[in-house]
Amino acid sequence: MQTQTLERLESNVRTYSRSFPVVFTKARNARLTDENGREYIDFLAGAGTLNYGHNNPHLKQALLDYLDSDGIVHGLDFWTAAKRDYLETLEEVILKPRGLEYKVHLPGPTGTNAVEAAIRLARVAQGRHNIVTFTNGFHGVTMGALATTGNRKFREATGGIPLQGSAFMPYDGYLGEADSLDYFEKLLGDNSSGLDLPAAVIVETVQGEGGINVAGLDWLKRLESICRDHGILLIVDDIQAGCGRTGKFFSFEHAGIKPDIVTNSKSLSGFGLPFAHVLMRPELDKWKPGQYNGTFRGFNLAFATAAAAMRHYWKDDTFERDVQRKGRVVEDRFQKIAAWMSEQGVKATERGRGLMRGIDVGDGDLADKITAKAFEKGLVIETSGQAGEVVKCLCPLTIPDEDLLAGLDILEQSVKEVVA
Amino acid sequence: MQTQTLERLESNVRTYSRSFPVVFTKARNARLTDENGREYIDFLAGAGTLNYGHNNPHLKQALLDYLDSDGIVHGLDFWTAAKRDYLETLEEVILKPRGLEYKVHLPGPTGTNAVEAAIRLARVAQGRHNIVTFTNGFHGVTMGALATTGNRKFREATGGIPLQGSAFMPYDGYLGEADSLDYFEKLLGDNSSGLDLPAAVIVETVQGEGGINVAGLDWLKRLESICRDHGILLIVDDIQAGCGRTGKFFSFEHAGIKPDIVTNSKSLSGFGLPFAHVLMRPELDKWKPGQYNGTFRGFNLAFATAAAAMRHYWKDDTFERDVQRKGRVVEDRFQKIAAWMSEQGVKATERGRGLMRGIDVGDGDLADKITAKAFEKGLVIETSGQAGEVVKCLCPLTIPDEDLLAGLDILEQSVKEVVA
Amino acid sequence: MQTQTLERLESNVRTYSRSFPVVFTKARNARLTDENGREYIDFLAGAGTLNYGHNNPHLKQALLDYLDSDGIVHGLDFWTAAKRDYLETLEEVILKPRGLEYKVHLPGPTGTNAVEAAIRLARVAQGRHNIVTFTNGFHGVTMGALATTGNRKFREATGGIPLQGSAFMPYDGYLGEADSLDYFEKLLGDNSSGLDLPAAVIVETVQGEGGINVAGLDWLKRLESICRDHGILLIVDDIQAGCGRTGKFFSFEHAGIKPDIVTNSKSLSGFGLPFAHVLMRPELDKWKPGQYNGTFRGFNLAFATAAAAMRHYWKDDTFERDVQRKGRVVEDRFQKIAAWMSEQGVKATERGRGLMRGIDVGDGDLADKITAKAFEKGLVIETSGQAGEVVKCLCPLTIPDEDLLAGLDILEQSVKEVVA
Amino acid sequence: MQTQTLERLESNVRTYSRSFPVVFTKARNARLTDENGREYIDFLAGAGTLNYGHNNPHLKQALLDYLDSDGIVHGLDFWTAAKRDYLETLEEVILKPRGLEYKVHLPGPTGTNAVEAAIRLARVAQGRHNIVTFTNGFHGVTMGALATTGNRKFREATGGIPLQGSAFMPYDGYLGEADSLDYFEKLLGDNSSGLDLPAAVIVETVQGEGGINVAGLDWLKRLESICRDHGILLIVDDIQAGCGRTGKFFSFEHAGIKPDIVTNSKSLSGFGLPFAHVLMRPELDKWKPGQYNGTFRGFNLAFATAAAAMRHYWKDDTFERDVQRKGRVVEDRFQKIAAWMSEQGVKATERGRGLMRGIDVGDGDLADKITAKAFEKGLVIETSGQAGEVVKCLCPLTIPDEDLLAGLDILEQSVKEVVA
Repeated sequence: MQTQTLERLESNVRTYSRSFPVVFTKARNARLTDENGREYIDFLAGAGTLNYGHNNPHLKQALLDYLDSDGIVHGLDFWTAAKRDYLETLEEVILKPRGLEYKVHLPGPTGTNAVEAAIRLARVAQGRHNIVTFTNGFHGVTMGALATTGNRKFREATGGIPLQGSAFMPYDGYLGEADSLDYFEKLLGDNSSGLDLPAAVIVETVQGEGGINVAGLDWLKRLESICRDHGILLIVDDIQAGCGRTGKFFSFEHAGIKPDIVTNSKSLSGFGLPFAHVLMRPELDKWKPGQYNGTFRGFNLAFATAAAAMRHYWKDDTFERDVQRKGRVVEDRFQKIAAWMSEQGVKATERGRGLMRGIDVGDGDLADKITAKAFEKGLVIETSGQAGEVVKCLCPLTIPDEDLLAGLDILEQSVKEVVA
Repeated sequence: MQTQTLERLESNVRTYSRSFPVVFTKARNARLTDENGREYIDFLAGAGTLNYGHNNPHLKQALLDYLDSDGIVHGLDFWTAAKRDYLETLEEVILKPRGLEYKVHLPGPTGTNAVEAAIRLARVAQGRHNIVTFTNGFHGVTMGALATTGNRKFREATGGIPLQGSAFMPYDGYLGEADSLDYFEKLLGDNSSGLDLPAAVIVETVQGEGGINVAGLDWLKRLESICRDHGILLIVDDIQAGCGRTGKFFSFEHAGIKPDIVTNSKSLSGFGLPFAHVLMRPELDKWKPGQYNGTFRGFNLAFATAAAAMRHYWKDDTFERDVQRKGRVVEDRFQKIAAWMSEQGVKATERGRGLMRGIDVGDGDLADKITAKAFEKGLVIETSGQAGEVVKCLCPLTIPDEDLLAGLDILEQSVKEVVA
Repeated sequence: MQTQTLERLESNVRTYSRSFPVVFTKARNARLTDENGREYIDFLAGAGTLNYGHNNPHLKQALLDYLDSDGIVHGLDFWTAAKRDYLETLEEVILKPRGLEYKVHLPGPTGTNAVEAAIRLARVAQGRHNIVTFTNGFHGVTMGALATTGNRKFREATGGIPLQGSAFMPYDGYLGEADSLDYFEKLLGDNSSGLDLPAAVIVETVQGEGGINVAGLDWLKRLESICRDHGILLIVDDIQAGCGRTGKFFSFEHAGIKPDIVTNSKSLSGFGLPFAHVLMRPELDKWKPGQYNGTFRGFNLAFATAAAAMRHYWKDDTFERDVQRKGRVVEDRFQKIAAWMSEQGVKATERGRGLMRGIDVGDGDLADKITAKAFEKGLVIETSGQAGEVVKCLCPLTIPDEDLLAGLDILEQSVKEVVA
Repeated sequence: MQTQTLERLESNVRTYSRSFPVVFTKARNARLTDENGREYIDFLAGAGTLNYGHNNPHLKQALLDYLDSDGIVHGLDFWTAAKRDYLETLEEVILKPRGLEYKVHLPGPTGTNAVEAAIRLARVAQGRHNIVTFTNGFHGVTMGALATTGNRKFREATGGIPLQGSAFMPYDGYLGEADSLDYFEKLLGDNSSGLDLPAAVIVETVQGEGGINVAGLDWLKRLESICRDHGILLIVDDIQAGCGRTGKFFSFEHAGIKPDIVTNSKSLSGFGLPFAHVLMRPELDKWKPGQYNGTFRGFNLAFATAAAAMRHYWKDDTFERDVQRKGRVVEDRFQKIAAWMSEQGVKATERGRGLMRGIDVGDGDLADKITAKAFEKGLVIETSGQAGEVVKCLCPLTIPDEDLLAGLDILEQSVKEVVA
């Protein structure tokens, strides 16, 4: 594989090519192929962007049909037949059956753009600026979103400018036995706590980058209730946990809550195409025409594949039951691996929801050794967590059982070789 | 055309569908077709995103070939064969012949993301925060980029938060006869001017959203020279003016300057696919691995079409000479129209560079009437400028002469009917 | 008493004249006299500014002698004999005996100015911006200091601008049984906690405005230790708790810690004259000449009275033992009052250190009724705390025993009448 | 003179003691005496704080009388007889005869505190944040005020935090022949200029620290008119130029304008005591009780001296005519000196208003040599301006003619020796 020009021309900022220093050429569902023809099982799936696998044939067909018809590819925020179909399908297939009523904002086609739009809308609608976010949360790196992202690596890269307009609260479990919402509620009720009354709270129901931290369903319900009581908007950032990843289309369905604002991106197009939307309760739609824009808002190829994905996978509960089933397969194996590690004196724990799962091995170096070993054996898998201490499985939801089991076998074997 | 669900479900923020309230279905080069089969000539071209026209067959073929091969569509910042080809083609076809040596940062696939990355890099590299930007400049709406964008409509939509880290200078011509760089230089040399020593200047050589304001070539040279003298980095935001729009691949080539950092997006993929890069002098590449990220950084379909566009259009100067020729056609007609208007007592002026051209009719309402009339007659064209007073032509660079002339005829006729 | 012009001409911002709507004319030690000749015992003492009482004769004599000599009253930051005497006395009488070595910065003569100087110095010395402050902390209201002040009333008066550069941590006791420093330490050690590595921590050892919240001595020691471990500067804001208020000259002496930076103001001049200084470890003195200024920095009349106060009261431990003795008198009575209230079903608790003491009656309205009743009976006393729920005693340290007891009797009687 | 402890104990931030490295002991009117008994004529006067001279006997008597009566020295914002007398005298002697109707806010006793209060009030009253300030303006160094101060030395001492909430405009004369208000007005009328609609403009009619830059009276009138037209509040910061310095009590009287908000400090107490107030049109008084506070707001000794100063100097126009006469004396001599320098090939110009005057010698080093030479000869005088290029005369307004002439002679002689 020839990598010199890649190394010479691409910025130092590159990161995945350091962990997986091969040149990939092809991919299909849960398998990647490199330039030498070697195949890898993919437990990364674009960090949750490829829930329906690489080059999903149903979605590819929708894309090819659209291209074949000379459909509009780029039209700013023009009305197009593809946009209409997308909105109608979203309403019929996703929102109505879940009792949700939202309007749709199509910002620039990335998660950070959706988060910026969501928190800006909350500020405009509420007339105040503070956004409460949580320890270990990740919501993007443009300056507005970055203020709500906990990761020091990104925060230090502002060139020293303080990030403003947000306040961090401890996530579920962060204070050990104590309910972290007790602290939040105390600050809200205290006139000199230093917490400015928030316009909104932004939360991930499962924190992906933060280390597969899973908020309890009661904690989420109480969070919704605190927000309602204090006139605070609840934003669920479902960019990584949404689109079926946790076993439901929206990750917050498990808790039975109804956020005021929802952000989706990553797997929303289904095919890896850049795409994002913000859902908002209709009465919150305080935008003036054109007040938030972006050249690539409303990417029509993504409308086509996203609508196809909803129609193919979400018309009934077959798909979500299958995801839940696979989630239990991973859960069982991860528990087994964690138990084995703990027996060896390397304390490890399993956690997750649906197919968003991790093993916390307690140490970033150890986790790196495990994922490096797995890559040697043909498995692409990454770590997450504040110190990279969690081995994270975000395989395609459509992964064939044989690939899933093969991947789990590789991981288990890698753990054994590294820990031994 | 059925538009109820569009009106009901899409956020108030929608804007182009207010000016062009039809549902588009197909497009080819400079022609759009609506759901009723009506055709329109396109002088908007995705606000400069479709320099090579809608569904350009050369680029579509590259896209179909890539899809047919099951090439990686989404791979975070994996090394892929498509990325390597993109980087090598960029170097060979674009950079080397122009005597430019840059490293390439692939941020999230939107202009605002590229601008955030560029100004953040400048701050990190320089160890100070101030970014000088210009009156009527537009650089995106995420919070970091928005601080450098002049438009009040967007700035007010922060919910009242001050935008920080930037200072506005008068653009070329803003101070009338006086050279606006005299003011900038005076402030730089004055220890109590209130201007914090900038890390960088960010500038568009022609301001698109700001009203087709054209910086003089000497002004740009002097700006580069002031930056060099004071240790300030020069960022050219070439998102709208780049990729051939002004008759050269980079808009700054006309002035013979070499920016420290360049941003491109919009027409960079060539096919309307979300895509952006930041070019930087190699010694400025102070990023640590992963310090700026984004799920859709390095969109592989865009690598494929962008490389195809460079190979097809930029291997020699045939294309750029053709763009320049068409630019003169528009210029002549716009001058004629402006002269006629002025004769009627409606003062109007023409300006632009290459195929980035406008007629300043002095009044946003009048400009709106003209573009509305043109739309009735089958021409899609928009206004820009601080009060929407400039009728702006950003047709595809590949527009056939007959469509170009037909579009100009419609515009001229619309002006006559409105002004009469 | 004629108050019309006062009501008409003074801004609505006035506050104490609403609680004590009389016109005061004279004062001596712990007694105030109004225009009608009525006397009041003073348990407010300028919110801790008059530790040595009103018109203290020793200090007044020093002031009169200085004026009589035509000493420099105002000299910017000129060297004067009075400044030299102040600095030498501070070193000899206060710093050396306590094993402290500090340089002295004389900023503008107010507490908020000293806090701004202190946190700015910390940022400059450390090269980073974040200042950790605590729930219910009060450090002043100019924009830099306000970012570290918790009170919503002041924070809302910025006109909506986010306050930047600080993060709030729970003060000692804020998390109930849990040690709030566990949370701070966890955030520090977590790479994605959202807590930017602080330049400094600013803390009051007893929070005056916040409600006489007393930090435990072990908590303060651990805080110092955490700061040392993480390279964070420790700033003790001793503006209200310093100058003997808690029974030692510096309030942090009780804990045996040595802050990197200390702020004093309020009782520093001893006579109610505006005055402040910042003490810093010599190696932290990174100021360039003139980099922080202010017209009234180094007020010479205050040098004269402050030096006299140090010489008169702090040459041995007679004074501090007397303060401690009086503190116990107040403590005993407050405990008795609180116990009686609790017996009546009105839960109340006593807290404080030295002569900085309060009764938390759990309810701001009740506290207001008590202090209003006390004023009727001739006692000036105010409330503090996030909801004004703490009746606060900050009497002069020099108060005669008979006045102290008379004041306590009035307070006790007022409580009984209000609660009954 | 013993200066070791001063050098050892005082922070590096000290500045005047570097230019005048002697220990001062006494002062009377325009004469300072050092520890060796040497006398100096004072053309600095506390940077405009001692308009009535050092130890003015009329004001000292008022102070002594007040102290003798055991008047309240410090009473937070209690109503006191001294405060009432101050407010009534201000209204009768100053405001009414000038047709001004203002309410009075007594913030902390320093200029920067008054400026913070003024701009914060403007933001609260207007519901928006931007404050327009001017090149070379100086308004204080606490974080809110610093955002409106142009001097880089102070701005760099924030530790890298961007200063927010302000925008700089060119002061009168800054754009050479062009009227700098044309630029301001153009930005206001331009929807994409980058200038957020200001809540207020803050301006000095003569910039003291900035280099004795004098705003034209027509320019000030037009500035007022622009503010009225756009609903912007006009704040005159009269901290240095007010209290008679320019030959009128308020410096803006010359222009016949009526600011919405005025700040005074420096010479307001008349005796060098820390003191400040903010005057505001009554309908702007949007403060809630206690929303802006400070321990030393309303310093009673200053009330006593300030009222005495108003009564003694401002009951008729005798004093202001005398100031104007002396101003012409200085003006004539400065013009003569500047002319002589220019004849020697050292271009120099005179400027100022009343007794706020300077000679711009074009070069900070030269100005330093002149003031150093003058100090050798017994004259205390400082420089100002962005590079310290202006030799600035701010002698007491009460200076005896013989001292004034003696000082001018020294200065002239110093210039001659240095230039020769």
